[in-house]
Amino acid sequence: MHSVHASRLADLRTELARQSLDGFLVSRADEHLGEYVPADAERLAWLTGFTGSAGIAVVLRDTAAVFTDGRYVLQLAAQTDPALWERRHITEEPPPAWTAEHARGARIGYDPLLFAEEGVQRYRDAGVDMVPVGENPIDSIWTDRPPPPLDPAEPYPLVYAGRTSEEKREEVAAALRKDKQDAAVITDPASIAWLLNIRGSDVPFTPFALGFAIVHADAACELFMAPQKLPPATREWLGNAVSVQDRPALPGALARLAGKRVRVDAAGSPAWFADRLRAAGATVVAAPDPCLLPKACKNEVERQGARNAHARDAVAVCRFLRWMEGAAGHETEMSAAAKLNEFRAREENFRGESFPCISGAGEDGAIIHYRVTPETNRAIRANETYLNDSGAQYLDGTTDLTRTVWTGPADPPAEIRDRVTRVLKGHIAIATLLFPQGTTGIQLDAFARAALWRVGLDYDHGTGHGVGAYLSVHEGPVSISRTAKPVPLAVGIILSNEPGYYEPGRYGVRLENLVLVQPAEVGTAKKPFLQFETLTLAPFDRRLINPSLLTAEEIGWLDAYHARVSAEVGPRLEPDEREWLSRACAPLSAD
Amino acid sequence: MHSVHASRLADLRTELARQSLDGFLVSRADEHLGEYVPADAERLAWLTGFTGSAGIAVVLRDTAAVFTDGRYVLQLAAQTDPALWERRHITEEPPPAWTAEHARGARIGYDPLLFAEEGVQRYRDAGVDMVPVGENPIDSIWTDRPPPPLDPAEPYPLVYAGRTSEEKREEVAAALRKDKQDAAVITDPASIAWLLNIRGSDVPFTPFALGFAIVHADAACELFMAPQKLPPATREWLGNAVSVQDRPALPGALARLAGKRVRVDAAGSPAWFADRLRAAGATVVAAPDPCLLPKACKNEVERQGARNAHARDAVAVCRFLRWMEGAAGHETEMSAAAKLNEFRAREENFRGESFPCISGAGEDGAIIHYRVTPETNRAIRANETYLNDSGAQYLDGTTDLTRTVWTGPADPPAEIRDRVTRVLKGHIAIATLLFPQGTTGIQLDAFARAALWRVGLDYDHGTGHGVGAYLSVHEGPVSISRTAKPVPLAVGIILSNEPGYYEPGRYGVRLENLVLVQPAEVGTAKKPFLQFETLTLAPFDRRLINPSLLTAEEIGWLDAYHARVSAEVGPRLEPDEREWLSRACAPLSAD
Repeated sequence: MHSVHASRLADLRTELARQSLDGFLVSRADEHLGEYVPADAERLAWLTGFTGSAGIAVVLRDTAAVFTDGRYVLQLAAQTDPALWERRHITEEPPPAWTAEHARGARIGYDPLLFAEEGVQRYRDAGVDMVPVGENPIDSIWTDRPPPPLDPAEPYPLVYAGRTSEEKREEVAAALRKDKQDAAVITDPASIAWLLNIRGSDVPFTPFALGFAIVHADAACELFMAPQKLPPATREWLGNAVSVQDRPALPGALARLAGKRVRVDAAGSPAWFADRLRAAGATVVAAPDPCLLPKACKNEVERQGARNAHARDAVAVCRFLRWMEGAAGHETEMSAAAKLNEFRAREENFRGESFPCISGAGEDGAIIHYRVTPETNRAIRANETYLNDSGAQYLDGTTDLTRTVWTGPADPPAEIRDRVTRVLKGHIAIATLLFPQGTTGIQLDAFARAALWRVGLDYDHGTGHGVGAYLSVHEGPVSISRTAKPVPLAVGIILSNEPGYYEPGRYGVRLENLVLVQPAEVGTAKKPFLQFETLTLAPFDRRLINPSLLTAEEIGWLDAYHARVSAEVGPRLEPDEREWLSRACAPLSAD
Repeated sequence: MHSVHASRLADLRTELARQSLDGFLVSRADEHLGEYVPADAERLAWLTGFTGSAGIAVVLRDTAAVFTDGRYVLQLAAQTDPALWERRHITEEPPPAWTAEHARGARIGYDPLLFAEEGVQRYRDAGVDMVPVGENPIDSIWTDRPPPPLDPAEPYPLVYAGRTSEEKREEVAAALRKDKQDAAVITDPASIAWLLNIRGSDVPFTPFALGFAIVHADAACELFMAPQKLPPATREWLGNAVSVQDRPALPGALARLAGKRVRVDAAGSPAWFADRLRAAGATVVAAPDPCLLPKACKNEVERQGARNAHARDAVAVCRFLRWMEGAAGHETEMSAAAKLNEFRAREENFRGESFPCISGAGEDGAIIHYRVTPETNRAIRANETYLNDSGAQYLDGTTDLTRTVWTGPADPPAEIRDRVTRVLKGHIAIATLLFPQGTTGIQLDAFARAALWRVGLDYDHGTGHGVGAYLSVHEGPVSISRTAKPVPLAVGIILSNEPGYYEPGRYGVRLENLVLVQPAEVGTAKKPFLQFETLTLAPFDRRLINPSLLTAEEIGWLDAYHARVSAEVGPRLEPDEREWLSRACAPLSAD
């Protein structure tokens, strides 16, 4: 495998010399800067071998480095050749500083369709001479590059979407008029899916129909999408206020915005759009994608859809957790992931996984975004932890949960019970929190960590990410983390609550439910307060919990949650499964 | 009083018309943008009557508004005439948006010596046409304006400062060289005091000698200060590497930086400096004052000085709290403030109050930064709360504490005990926290609020501010608040820990100790962890605490803290005082 990547790297350097560049940035991105990308945009994986969902390579004449975040550092080390690549932690040693240090005075190329303006600026701020390329040098040497996807976009009916596209376009247009903007460029396929009530299947795990849109301040909309992707039923569904053009018409449409004030998301849209607009004589206003916040705040129909989807998902997860009790010695990480998918596929409205299942036994659980492959697959053994982080796309909602179980039959070691219980304390702290309207995720993140901090421990990822409504399992603009944007939590937003703890080489713990932001009814409150409604329904492994570390209130929360799981999921199960669930949900306070 | 302010406002409007301006911004600021300003810079108070330490007035042709923050909203309403001024909450309705809305297309003047560049930019971003004035229109009409202060600057000896000025200048110069900067403009008198190991008495409450400095990358320093303020001993103390020039030499010195890269604090320095430097052909690099962080991280001598100052301050505070037990019916808010100052003045190294004493009985305690005046002074009555927030400047350290007591003799109402206990739970949460190095104050703030949030309550101020070493009682760059800058807490930083709760018109609660950031020794820790050492030593009123709301750990912390207060302060007291303290510090767990 490594010799393939050596020759690809050599080819790239030859191509860079031909384009008079001293270096090139290879991001893991398509023209929509999304998390999941079609096969033709997997340039980073093709070049380096690294398949994580976040990363960037900096290729210079004599040296090269690949950067990723804490979730993927072990995977990066395993998948890339140290003879070719330095491997770096993206926050501890940011690529702009590394590039500036290793390439002072050098001309570093980047593809403006694959970098946001803010991303490019960080390199310029560090002193890097950044040169936009007209033709991506990887594309010139990647001879067997797959074609772009052409799957059809389909109507997303009102019974799931809850609001008409007209209503949504009018809301976005009103926001543009309020900010004195004539139009907004929409490059995020999740925003287009939400705004136009359509879904597709162009990328794995997320029902996107890839395209671009321009929304005008009069609520008219131009959609740029290959005509093969738009069957007559979808064209009819879009209606007359949405004009449809093919992708090559996009530069011309941007040029027609000359003299207008056009909103572009400087963090989320490729720099190419602002470059083109400025060149055409438009005024670019850098502001977040106007769909982001309205999309994040789910309407009543979407909220009920999420509850329904989670109730069905819970049936599959509970069956899986019961099945796991007999897995040690017989099953593998891959067979367990397949089994859970099999249970889920039986449920109504199931459309596939919402991200690659993380199925990690023992030490593999410590790889935060571990993706099991035939090469890494291993048997699930007795007396170890098993971590499963997975989710599904249902027509009425997107799920994502993590459970960590003990395979037994012996009791788990005191250390692991201590760590699991501290992670659970953090999970409960978020689940039970009341907080005033206006609070941002950076203010809440540490509640999930305090019980670990107490003994000098921590975890190297955020506590919560936004989750879409039959859309992306990771969506903005709100998160619970130390890098959260200053956007307050608001009613209707769905977030994950997923503290963890990881001992590299030994075990990993993560406990994740999805939660929905709701108004809190507090008699004494003098301003609006919010709280979380937990959506996910599945037992936490009682063997891994040390009740003596929990307060009475924490035990009360866990027992009430388990009672709810038993009451809501039990009736959907077969009698023997129901009995198992009832035991798994027995109150701690009765022990 | 109000008719005076009506005529001043009319005079200002006449002067604005003469200068062809449609409006003017009057900030509460001097040329150093500090919190305490000399009498000649009290333009906002002179114009409006509002004497709070933070505020801004926007004067337009037909309307005018004064803005302040949550600490001062009640005071603003009491001190200004509603017929002349709209009164606004500065964060709920930011002045730039208000100005843009009320003065679209108008020419709004500002004094570039009294506004930071970032401050001006916020108005420009909102669409306001901002016009720098050469001559401040207030100064033209303020005929009896006091002269600027000319008190002497004095050496601050090494026995308190802990490090030589040479060492500090070399540290700052090394930081400039690392960032490829040729010089830095220093406009903050606290930075100059720290850097040059001098102190003065130009402004109330803070030992500043007002001046400006330019530090060069070779560690040489130019000081701009009136020669009358520099007696021979101080000149000798400054040494040969510090050149001294008068204030009028400053524009010439800035012009001599033509062609250089000069660091200016865009948030903390007046816009005038960057304007002048750019006009002279220098490259302005916007970056924080290079003294800020090294000054905030107290050295070992300063840390021990702080402990010593707090131990002496505690003697005065404990005497005061005992005296307060007989105050109801006999004393007033003013006499109580004077009595505490009298006790403090007996202590060694005492140099004065570190800010105006907040002495608020009953409903006055709800005015967050209440300043008692002969007009507002009232008797301290039986059966109410009394809140005292005060501090002192000692040669070896700066103190700041708040205690809320119950005057008795009846028991306090359950509601007040509930609120005090929740504030105490927040205080203890901060005091006992362990957190990893790299954590910022915005991540910690909510721990102080969670017990209030639980019942829908909150407080409208930050939880903690930085405190200087015989310098300003409010210093940057670190704080514990939802608006904290992204600067991590670091060993040696002194912060306040001061959650509160306020019922306007009824009572206010605040419990404040100063804390020092220290390394935490945790056996299991895999990275450096930090914790707080509490510096302030004074009992919390046990009558106001409801132990049934506290956890065993919280009671344990309070009892251990009270035992420490008794053990450390008791031996410094007279026998009858010591007995009182011992009762005040009796363990809750023994009740």
